[in-house]
Amino acid sequence: MHQILQPQRTVAELKELRTLTGDAEGAQRVAFTPVWEKSRAWLRNKLSELPVDIEQDEAGNLWATLIGESEQAILIGSHIDSVPNGGWLDGCLGVMAGMEVLRRYAAAGKPRFTIKLVDWCDEEGARFGRSLFGSSAVSGALDIDSVRSLTDRNGDRLEEVVKRCGIDLSKVSASQSRIQNAAAYAELHIEQGPVLEGMNLAMGAVQGTFGVERHTITFTGQAAHSGSTPMAYRRDALAGVSRLHLAIREIAVKHGGVCTVGSVKTKPGIVTAVVGEAEMTLDQRHLSAESLAAMYHEAKEASDAIAKEERIEVAWKTLWQIQPFPFHPDLIELADQSIVEVCGQSHKLPSGPLHDAAEVCRTGVPTIMLFVQSLYGISHNKIEDTREEHLIASVQVLDRLVQKITQWLGNR
Amino acid sequence: MHQILQPQRTVAELKELRTLTGDAEGAQRVAFTPVWEKSRAWLRNKLSELPVDIEQDEAGNLWATLIGESEQAILIGSHIDSVPNGGWLDGCLGVMAGMEVLRRYAAAGKPRFTIKLVDWCDEEGARFGRSLFGSSAVSGALDIDSVRSLTDRNGDRLEEVVKRCGIDLSKVSASQSRIQNAAAYAELHIEQGPVLEGMNLAMGAVQGTFGVERHTITFTGQAAHSGSTPMAYRRDALAGVSRLHLAIREIAVKHGGVCTVGSVKTKPGIVTAVVGEAEMTLDQRHLSAESLAAMYHEAKEASDAIAKEERIEVAWKTLWQIQPFPFHPDLIELADQSIVEVCGQSHKLPSGPLHDAAEVCRTGVPTIMLFVQSLYGISHNKIEDTREEHLIASVQVLDRLVQKITQWLGNR
Repeated sequence: MHQILQPQRTVAELKELRTLTGDAEGAQRVAFTPVWEKSRAWLRNKLSELPVDIEQDEAGNLWATLIGESEQAILIGSHIDSVPNGGWLDGCLGVMAGMEVLRRYAAAGKPRFTIKLVDWCDEEGARFGRSLFGSSAVSGALDIDSVRSLTDRNGDRLEEVVKRCGIDLSKVSASQSRIQNAAAYAELHIEQGPVLEGMNLAMGAVQGTFGVERHTITFTGQAAHSGSTPMAYRRDALAGVSRLHLAIREIAVKHGGVCTVGSVKTKPGIVTAVVGEAEMTLDQRHLSAESLAAMYHEAKEASDAIAKEERIEVAWKTLWQIQPFPFHPDLIELADQSIVEVCGQSHKLPSGPLHDAAEVCRTGVPTIMLFVQSLYGISHNKIEDTREEHLIASVQVLDRLVQKITQWLGNR
Repeated sequence: MHQILQPQRTVAELKELRTLTGDAEGAQRVAFTPVWEKSRAWLRNKLSELPVDIEQDEAGNLWATLIGESEQAILIGSHIDSVPNGGWLDGCLGVMAGMEVLRRYAAAGKPRFTIKLVDWCDEEGARFGRSLFGSSAVSGALDIDSVRSLTDRNGDRLEEVVKRCGIDLSKVSASQSRIQNAAAYAELHIEQGPVLEGMNLAMGAVQGTFGVERHTITFTGQAAHSGSTPMAYRRDALAGVSRLHLAIREIAVKHGGVCTVGSVKTKPGIVTAVVGEAEMTLDQRHLSAESLAAMYHEAKEASDAIAKEERIEVAWKTLWQIQPFPFHPDLIELADQSIVEVCGQSHKLPSGPLHDAAEVCRTGVPTIMLFVQSLYGISHNKIEDTREEHLIASVQVLDRLVQKITQWLGNR
């Protein structure tokens, strides 16, 4: 037993896990695969050295519970699963750092509040396309019937695959009880974006997860011969895409959110024809539900105006929507203070990607996340990396944050 | 023998040919196929009733020669081949109308100049992707070695396929002698565009065929997460495409040409990523070589400026280029007069699509084309159509034009 936090051990364990579960293409801890099970067995083995109860809940989440004086619990969570050919830090950094914090608390005697480390099941959704499986089961947001028949690349059904991992879909909702005594939730994660690196900062306090409006927009004009059709006669569907793409960039800047056109498809899509049909995807994100709604409505109005001017048609189809999850204001301040104390300087920033923290936040449990700088802003890739000094600082900040949350809960 | 032009017979013959060589999906007279050979046998049979010499040249062009007092020849040409599922008028209207004019001349006794009807071989290039096969062989522009190994959808090589139709590739260049006595060339064709219909005119005199600059332009930025990458950090390759697309529309209008972005491809092309690489095609056409060059250079400058502003890279790759072929100014006037005399009103317009006339023009033979209105501006499709009264007028105008060309040549 060690009484002092040893962040260097977290780095060593991350490297150990990388060797055990990665290959030349990166991390291979895809949920519900043998490599993932191997990583969890390795994690259980590490946790078994601590005075904690280890259990897998009905949704496949792995819990390590250090009983405190109060049943009220501080949750520290993240996920050990990865995308295929993933990075060495995405998800598992939060689990390893949480384990180190748990170690320190365990060595210090019975804590004031119960402390639970949770390794959420299948955050990435890499195999079946449904991310946040375990945390959305706990929050009650998972629609069991909509995932039952999802199939992977080989045609294997989710229901059968998870059964082999000890998950009975009909009992998954029982996992909701796990959140009942939760008093706060903290998650450390790599940023997966360029903001902290661009500001030359080690860490940031996360304000919440963006809400998302995701749509496919199809413009329909008239395919026509590129040689025989004068400009004034054209009904160019691509003009809708080009003009709307430029418009959504301005809308994003105006509202301080992000808007992305990730894909464009043209039909007939040949060099000698004016585009008759052009399809684009639009992904809009904002931390404020009002601003997100405004961005969506302004994009829709812009598309209608452009279509009218270009004498083309426009149709919107919703792909996905989720509300923003703003984290707890007190916890944002505590996170900010913890970062300042360890790193000297902090920054508050929203999370573009979703995280399990969003599902916890959905239940009303006070929630907070810490971001640590990602080199090159790159993730979901074997080149994903973070400086070792920043990894070490991140473990220290997480530990400090849990201490501050303990005080905060004690004062409530 | 009939001494009077019977344009109604041309319409009847076009319908006869449609029944013989079309199906529910449209015309099927793809060059070097049995249906094409059937259409040519049918044409030869019609021509055999006239006092003309009928020959196939070394490039597969079919010639019907009515010997005149002079060896100097007026050529009337078009093509009987079609694209798959093509229209009932594209190409064959010019051949049928030319045959009717030949009939009238043959019935009137020996003409002042020799008159030749030519059915060019494989104008469309639908099977092997090389259009204007026969006419470019005659003009000397066909590079035999570059077409020898072209293959069709089934993997059959052009060299073997044309051999079965009596064409020995090694002897194709001998067809160039066919143009030696040509004093003028006239071609009637449907417009395949919306201009005459938009002006409510039956016919127009063609000023020449557009020159073409055809390029693939690739913008390279940085793929990035659509949620975690603030707008200011993005290097969005699609911004290059959107902005250049809007710029080339203005360039086209400014110079009175046409510019088209027909295809856009995005990579990674997923809803959750900023586009890292965006590829677009650009097709620019103009009747003036100077204006075409200006349009090309302005597009290139615009792409460089946009790339710089967006902090992305841009690369151009040439797909195809051809110079403009302006038709003979005297013949444009004669065509215009002929149209006014028959239809009351005329219009001079360029041809966006290429035609065999461009290859004849390349040889220096005075060349002219007549366009007759296309309904809906649509061609290469079974709904391609032209009003019967316009078809009839077009035969009359072609006949009148050949008479005027006879006078013009006599006065030279």
